[in-house]
Amino acid sequence: MPLKRFFAELAWAGRAEVDTKAALRAAGDVITGAQIARDVMIEVDDGRITKVTPGEVQDAESVRLTGLTIPGLANAHSHAFQRALRGRTHQGAGDFWTWREAMYETASALDPDRYYALARATYAEMALAGITAVGEFHYLHHGPGGRAYGDPNEMGRALIAAARDAGIRITLLDCCYLRGGFDRPLDGVQVRFGDGDAERWAERMEDLLGSQSDTVLVAAAIHSVRAVDPKAMATVARFASEHEMPLHVHVSEQRSENAECLEATGHTPAGQLARTGVLGPSTTAVHATHLDEADVVSLGRSGAHVCMCPTTERDLADGVGPARALARAGSPLCLGTDSHASIDLFEEARAVELDERLITERRGHHRAPDLLHAATAAGMQSLGWNGGVLEPGAPADFVTLDLASVRLAGVEPSSVLEHLVFAASAADVVGVIVGGEQVVAARRHTKVPDVARSLSQAIKAVVEPAAVAP
Amino acid sequence: MPLKRFFAELAWAGRAEVDTKAALRAAGDVITGAQIARDVMIEVDDGRITKVTPGEVQDAESVRLTGLTIPGLANAHSHAFQRALRGRTHQGAGDFWTWREAMYETASALDPDRYYALARATYAEMALAGITAVGEFHYLHHGPGGRAYGDPNEMGRALIAAARDAGIRITLLDCCYLRGGFDRPLDGVQVRFGDGDAERWAERMEDLLGSQSDTVLVAAAIHSVRAVDPKAMATVARFASEHEMPLHVHVSEQRSENAECLEATGHTPAGQLARTGVLGPSTTAVHATHLDEADVVSLGRSGAHVCMCPTTERDLADGVGPARALARAGSPLCLGTDSHASIDLFEEARAVELDERLITERRGHHRAPDLLHAATAAGMQSLGWNGGVLEPGAPADFVTLDLASVRLAGVEPSSVLEHLVFAASAADVVGVIVGGEQVVAARRHTKVPDVARSLSQAIKAVVEPAAVAP
Repeated sequence: MPLKRFFAELAWAGRAEVDTKAALRAAGDVITGAQIARDVMIEVDDGRITKVTPGEVQDAESVRLTGLTIPGLANAHSHAFQRALRGRTHQGAGDFWTWREAMYETASALDPDRYYALARATYAEMALAGITAVGEFHYLHHGPGGRAYGDPNEMGRALIAAARDAGIRITLLDCCYLRGGFDRPLDGVQVRFGDGDAERWAERMEDLLGSQSDTVLVAAAIHSVRAVDPKAMATVARFASEHEMPLHVHVSEQRSENAECLEATGHTPAGQLARTGVLGPSTTAVHATHLDEADVVSLGRSGAHVCMCPTTERDLADGVGPARALARAGSPLCLGTDSHASIDLFEEARAVELDERLITERRGHHRAPDLLHAATAAGMQSLGWNGGVLEPGAPADFVTLDLASVRLAGVEPSSVLEHLVFAASAADVVGVIVGGEQVVAARRHTKVPDVARSLSQAIKAVVEPAAVAP
Repeated sequence: MPLKRFFAELAWAGRAEVDTKAALRAAGDVITGAQIARDVMIEVDDGRITKVTPGEVQDAESVRLTGLTIPGLANAHSHAFQRALRGRTHQGAGDFWTWREAMYETASALDPDRYYALARATYAEMALAGITAVGEFHYLHHGPGGRAYGDPNEMGRALIAAARDAGIRITLLDCCYLRGGFDRPLDGVQVRFGDGDAERWAERMEDLLGSQSDTVLVAAAIHSVRAVDPKAMATVARFASEHEMPLHVHVSEQRSENAECLEATGHTPAGQLARTGVLGPSTTAVHATHLDEADVVSLGRSGAHVCMCPTTERDLADGVGPARALARAGSPLCLGTDSHASIDLFEEARAVELDERLITERRGHHRAPDLLHAATAAGMQSLGWNGGVLEPGAPADFVTLDLASVRLAGVEPSSVLEHLVFAASAADVVGVIVGGEQVVAARRHTKVPDVARSLSQAIKAVVEPAAVAP
């Protein structure tokens, strides 16, 4: 593959450090003191960054990136099919559990073709929003009645193909899901989630590993402490550890989950995970909304990432998790759009801070560089990608924003990162490069000609399955 | 002025009723049963709607509105100059009161020319977001040191000119602001806010009334119970009543405001307003975040509007107000972008519901049609405009949204309003008509050629006043 060169008018190289010396240490010769560098030549070979040089002059061979270029955004928690629910679950009252009924109904309409089409369109929407890697938390493994497809990984491979065709990286977080609750078997559409036991989950996973590539990682997931017993959790954790892959798990999104876990086990969900050996630096706890102090300490000391999904946590009336306390305790934060009520990582990033403001009636819990770090390098790390920075050796994933939008107008050098976090929107993304390939140019997806139309058709096929030929 | 005709592919006529019979009663012959009508011809004469007919065929003379057309959005609470603070107040910690220091510094840099330029650009950003009427809560009346300008209403008239030149309606909520606190005189830049006493405020107001027009209303405002003593409040309320104008007042945005008021008067701020005769159907209480049950009853029974400003209330760590309880008690809700951390009334509308979900851990406090009613007709009423509906007699203000954006893709007829509230963004606004004039066409402002550039220049002149020639 030939060397490619991109010329960024302005660039932020990533990393959270704002102290000049630390920034210099972290970014090597990339950023010479300032956080935002001008006229930065980014050289790319074989999908990776080979050189980053500020203060260059553009030449005819380099592609100009007009605006501010930042590392690609990582969406560390996605359920692609839930994009079909956007706007459709707000006509009654209820809570997370009544919402889940609608979600299960949508899940039950999926087959590999419909899932592929919906995920491809959803991932294309992510690309337009500057997301270059998605963590797909995947549990709809099997066909109606729980019967395995001819290829037991047909659904997972549909998701992998969807990401490839939408031009973004995927970490397929393949989920072990064995029971409906602490004392309940799988029920209804849940039978499609189950592999029977953790050993059979591991067998299926072994087969899936062959689908990995430069832009595809396979990783492990435990749905939740209610859906997987401790022995099976330990099996999944061991598998993840042996294969040096990330391990994701839903934790304490709802209070009733905590109450059930306490009643059944005498421990909180985070406590159960700690006892079962699930927590560690390659683990990501998703949501972590309702924690006690010991949970925060336990997660923080283990070095586990915590993936907050604030717009979903608003939508599903989950509550506000202790993001500040978790970060202080040692858990790197990352971000996910989860149910895709919205696909905008800038909104997720600011929501971490803003929702904590609402609860505490104080400002300034998280610095803007830290929130952008959550949206980039920390998310990439949670998903197993050594990226999210503009540095030699990192995957060549970057995103260019239009600083001349009405939302960002008035931005000044000393507060660019604050403007990005508190005022930018997915609509400000003008260009996206993944592995050195231009996936979005001039706000248009280069591989999916009409993303909105693809979304419309794919959603219609799922919410009105009878109306569409199979 | 000649008759104008607009042909809307799809239209929502406004009003919150979703019951078919109520919708029919409310909308007369406009909407024939369905909430969303197709192929709607909207006829306009002299700035007002004269006829609305669904099921028509487009002809050559009518302007086609491609997408969904809804009534113009009302931004019921704005401090235009605070647009200069967006993205600039997030580098430290602190609370509302430390933020206020930065806000005062910005205010102190304003003169009539700079205020005009900043307000015009900010109102143009509002127009691009579908806002057709703004309520400008205006207290920066006088020059440095509190000296009146040659025309004591020069600042107010600058705001009126700014709205005119940005193509939107304005209700100038001219604010009485007499003291720095219950036991403190005006201090620092606050001296520019004060008229000395309520009688002199009223004199200035009398003079300002001459600036009213088809698109300009002058109305009264009381900054807060801490800034205006009860006798002066009564004078302002009497003036507003005699002139049949709206009266707006900040209420209980911060707990310390309540504590000071209780200590000084023995009553809550809402209690003080009730005792002083300030509350009534033409009053709007802004924020109403920290209320006790008696406050809720008092506001609701009076029929006062309550203007929630959720993105500002997030930004300033105010807290979450009891929107559901207020609406149930009888207060129509309306919405404001206030400090302009964001200018997006769809985000404000959903935030009312979503923030209440975070606090209660339940969904479904507000129906989508009610939230859109808050963003349209209720806001217009709060500002003294009999509009926010597509009905004969109403001002010809309407907004067209692109339903084929990636955010709204997948919308279906039965949940259009839910999609608008929970998924739309200001970036989906493609066309805006105010008083029959096209102010935004194909996402471009027709009167302000480069809104982002105007914002940039106007903000620079205020935050770096020394760098710009006066």
